[in-house]
Amino acid sequence: MTAQPAPKQTTGADRLRDLRAELERRGLDGFLVPMADEYQNEYVPPRAKRIEWLTGFTGSAGLVVVLTERAAIFTDGRYTLQVADQVDSDLYDLRHIVEAPATDWIGEHLPAGAKLGYDPWLFTADGVRRFAEATEKAGGALIPADDNPIDVIWTDQPPTPAAPVVPHDISYAGQPSAKKRAQLAEALRKDGIDAAVITASDSIAWMLNVRGGDVSHTPLPLSLAVLHADAQVDFFLDAAKRSDGLDAHLGNEVAIQTPDSFGPALDKLGQDGKTVLADPAVSASWVFDRLDEAGAKIVRRADPCQLPKACKNETELNGTRAAHRRDGAAVTRFLRWLDENAASGTIDEIAAADHLAGLRAGNDLFRDLSFDTISGAGPNGAIVHYRVTPESNRKLEPGTLYLVDSGAQYLDGTTDITRTIAIGEPTAEMRDRFTRVLKGHIAIATCRFPEGTTGSQLDVLARHALWQAGLDFDHGTGHGVGSYLGVHEGPQRVSKVGNTVALKPGMIVSNEPGYYKTDGYGIRIENLVAVVMADDMADAERPMLKFETLTFAPVDLNLVDPSMLSDDEKAWLNGYHAEVRSILSPQIDAANQAWLATATRPVD
Amino acid sequence: MTAQPAPKQTTGADRLRDLRAELERRGLDGFLVPMADEYQNEYVPPRAKRIEWLTGFTGSAGLVVVLTERAAIFTDGRYTLQVADQVDSDLYDLRHIVEAPATDWIGEHLPAGAKLGYDPWLFTADGVRRFAEATEKAGGALIPADDNPIDVIWTDQPPTPAAPVVPHDISYAGQPSAKKRAQLAEALRKDGIDAAVITASDSIAWMLNVRGGDVSHTPLPLSLAVLHADAQVDFFLDAAKRSDGLDAHLGNEVAIQTPDSFGPALDKLGQDGKTVLADPAVSASWVFDRLDEAGAKIVRRADPCQLPKACKNETELNGTRAAHRRDGAAVTRFLRWLDENAASGTIDEIAAADHLAGLRAGNDLFRDLSFDTISGAGPNGAIVHYRVTPESNRKLEPGTLYLVDSGAQYLDGTTDITRTIAIGEPTAEMRDRFTRVLKGHIAIATCRFPEGTTGSQLDVLARHALWQAGLDFDHGTGHGVGSYLGVHEGPQRVSKVGNTVALKPGMIVSNEPGYYKTDGYGIRIENLVAVVMADDMADAERPMLKFETLTFAPVDLNLVDPSMLSDDEKAWLNGYHAEVRSILSPQIDAANQAWLATATRPVD
Repeated sequence: MTAQPAPKQTTGADRLRDLRAELERRGLDGFLVPMADEYQNEYVPPRAKRIEWLTGFTGSAGLVVVLTERAAIFTDGRYTLQVADQVDSDLYDLRHIVEAPATDWIGEHLPAGAKLGYDPWLFTADGVRRFAEATEKAGGALIPADDNPIDVIWTDQPPTPAAPVVPHDISYAGQPSAKKRAQLAEALRKDGIDAAVITASDSIAWMLNVRGGDVSHTPLPLSLAVLHADAQVDFFLDAAKRSDGLDAHLGNEVAIQTPDSFGPALDKLGQDGKTVLADPAVSASWVFDRLDEAGAKIVRRADPCQLPKACKNETELNGTRAAHRRDGAAVTRFLRWLDENAASGTIDEIAAADHLAGLRAGNDLFRDLSFDTISGAGPNGAIVHYRVTPESNRKLEPGTLYLVDSGAQYLDGTTDITRTIAIGEPTAEMRDRFTRVLKGHIAIATCRFPEGTTGSQLDVLARHALWQAGLDFDHGTGHGVGSYLGVHEGPQRVSKVGNTVALKPGMIVSNEPGYYKTDGYGIRIENLVAVVMADDMADAERPMLKFETLTFAPVDLNLVDPSMLSDDEKAWLNGYHAEVRSILSPQIDAANQAWLATATRPVD
Repeated sequence: MTAQPAPKQTTGADRLRDLRAELERRGLDGFLVPMADEYQNEYVPPRAKRIEWLTGFTGSAGLVVVLTERAAIFTDGRYTLQVADQVDSDLYDLRHIVEAPATDWIGEHLPAGAKLGYDPWLFTADGVRRFAEATEKAGGALIPADDNPIDVIWTDQPPTPAAPVVPHDISYAGQPSAKKRAQLAEALRKDGIDAAVITASDSIAWMLNVRGGDVSHTPLPLSLAVLHADAQVDFFLDAAKRSDGLDAHLGNEVAIQTPDSFGPALDKLGQDGKTVLADPAVSASWVFDRLDEAGAKIVRRADPCQLPKACKNETELNGTRAAHRRDGAAVTRFLRWLDENAASGTIDEIAAADHLAGLRAGNDLFRDLSFDTISGAGPNGAIVHYRVTPESNRKLEPGTLYLVDSGAQYLDGTTDITRTIAIGEPTAEMRDRFTRVLKGHIAIATCRFPEGTTGSQLDVLARHALWQAGLDFDHGTGHGVGSYLGVHEGPQRVSKVGNTVALKPGMIVSNEPGYYKTDGYGIRIENLVAVVMADDMADAERPMLKFETLTFAPVDLNLVDPSMLSDDEKAWLNGYHAEVRSILSPQIDAANQAWLATATRPVD
């Protein structure tokens, strides 16, 4: 929610010139600059924001390709306007990363025989393969750099973050690290694998029951690990991050080592002829190069922590239930405040987001927001990944919709909720669209499905009511959510895009259909849900699953057209609101209770 | 519908012994015998039923692996009982082809160093790859045979079928072959491809506007073709199949050649350094071996006829609409006959199927059934791919359900319809299950979806009402259907299994959810539907598609519980029945009209 300073165009030209000079010194004809760090997480620390330093672009995702004569920046649809605003188009071609991919641009502009450099720490093995193909096709060569040329010229580059890594208490984690490691190791042994390289920070956090603070919004301990088939772990961690009590927490089977010794450890695996698992979709290309050179037999396979981490245990589920109850009370206080103040037209997007953040911060076990709040009034609500800035900040005005997508990191769980609120009287169209989105939300919330079903199979349920009116939304219906970890996690998801990962008990996903009218308004209704066994079905002929809704906060009834709801849908809405009332009322004062009672009144 | 003679066990032992002797003469330690011919079609001519001759098994799908000391037959779930009945388990291990795949059995039983033979004409390139991996893993070698050893010892093997290949009139095909070839050729040229090898018989039939009669139920012209980038075609066809008028129909750009010259034609492509498209999922491994040896550059890609063949033109759609109207009249006459006679308990499955076939045969443009009728009374209805035999034949008895899945090949279109009929009074459970299946059927029939949607995305709509009761069905919701061609065709389908082919206007698919209670009863409601533009949606924000139901015949209202249907669902059912009545009544006599009026009465 903090605005970024506008970039200085002259600075951009200077920095690009400096980078080209550095490339020339190295005999390179170009370089790839991704928005990524060594751990390939969604959020990166300031020192990894090389694109921002180089070009001025402050978006969360992008890629820059610098060649001797030309350069280009590639961003996705949500940043089309922003990139044009922040980046000098005399210096960079501005391209849509999906519609005009970097591999095509390289094909057009890389001279034959050219050497295109990249930092093998900042690309996954899968990512490098795509660029290697494109470079080869253009008659050039893709060359890994020993160190990053931007780091050489960026004199005031922020240091590597060094937040302490702390134990994540068993009362939140639910299962001792030793048990997790034993189960992972058993699976490795069964497949004849000697060791697994784990570089995803959330996987390491989960496996070792630790949390860190190296990036915003997610308590990630940036670090590296090797899990051996005897359940021992080499944990490569900056000494500065070693908090008091960490060693005792980790125990004898986890050996903390300096980050420098990660490479030699991989060499040793290779020299000993070990079979080593690494995930090419997740781990840096550097890891594969090093293992390969050392002679290790690499098994390319999904990070073994991913699936067990996604399937929360009973302690984690109870934690997230508790976190959601507290979070819902904060959201409800916010909604009442909005209801009582917004109609005056004095509240703006930043004030609203700040007010909500303040209410959350007062909750027990609050640690951080789980992402920058999306606080979109009127047309800004139609921008799916909108982030308010002082320039874009709008007042909440009568006759418009206000969309707020927000969440928090509590020690016992991660929340993510979207509510859409009518400011003043909504139009009939707004109510029609909102009710269709609600129907999709209810279809997901209430569906039961046999074991083996994937989120992709369920996705249409969220869209069906919109499709019948010729409408749709251009994002997934649901993403995985961690347990005091990433607000986005895999491997499960609910999406149009095919996905072969079956939904399993304990997985948490968001249920967030929407509708966006460009330059008009945005609607999204998001609750988190957990996959649980549907063991209440007496006549079921096969093992069935269902979703338990975790999020509790009122849905704006001013936007609901009850005549469009079936009896079953009304029953769900009224039942949900009754639950919201009973769970939240004990946590809020009498005035809020009274407001909540009205906000959750039954519809018929 | 003709019963197969029971196999003689002694014959089975003799033939297996003869095959092993032939393999020994060739220096082979084993051989793979698939249920396939050179064209990889769903139906094969009698001479390709090598498994039946060798083992006695008469099912439509299976694989036999013969080794020196052991042999095994692999079949799918629908044949578990039948294979045990027909095949001597002293000679063959009986295995489930999915749960205990042949590749595993080979891994267990193939001695290291063994040579396992196969006929490269009878496996696709993709199929061979799987067996090559398994054989290699077992330390053996997979060896292509120059000719099939079974053909050597099968002295009275039926001859190659030689039904005449006849023109498919433009009044049915809608588009001249020259235009289809020109469009295909243009696409090849655009991708720098010199020629495409087309071996799928339905692709050849479509491309050249011809039909044949070499296998039952599908008017396939077994033959081979090479389409060149200049739109010329080499058509490799047995001279005996050349009907009067075929040459004139094909014109100068299609050169009929003997099947013997197919190999040399591939050699020539290779020698000339041509880039040749072939589909490894569809075409025989032999084709790839030959092209490879000749030095051709092979582009492995989907058969280019598949997608345009699937998207029927207006003439084909009008043809199939007309065929379905006539077909519906025959089915309706049958349903009345059943209604008036079945309750007496005197009709059996064979008599019912024969009666229906007779009614269809009287229709204009009737050529054949489109598959062996599935005529399942009581528990036999629960066997998804049931084929009645004199041994399995059951009477239709009061208090049971009767499931009949049938279709016909008419010159102007292919039909496929399933109805489930209550004989006497159904139970409450039967009505509940039937109504859930109907809800699924209606959900597919009525859904609208944006361009780009795949059948896999829609599949859940057919299952949702069943899932809510813990029920499901273990087959796809819909398969593609041809235009006086295969009753099963790709690439589209509606299925749990992920599929990346978007539904496009003109595609025909079945809409056939079901429910099966083992040893109890089977329910399936199947209509064919065509994908059409939904251009009746004034407020649609994106191009939308919908299904047009093609099949017209009453749904048994005795099995419908109207209290379980929403108003929209009732409106669909009543609207559909009104259409059935208005389309079929002019084709049937007064007595049938009166019956139909009752059968299609509105529900509320």
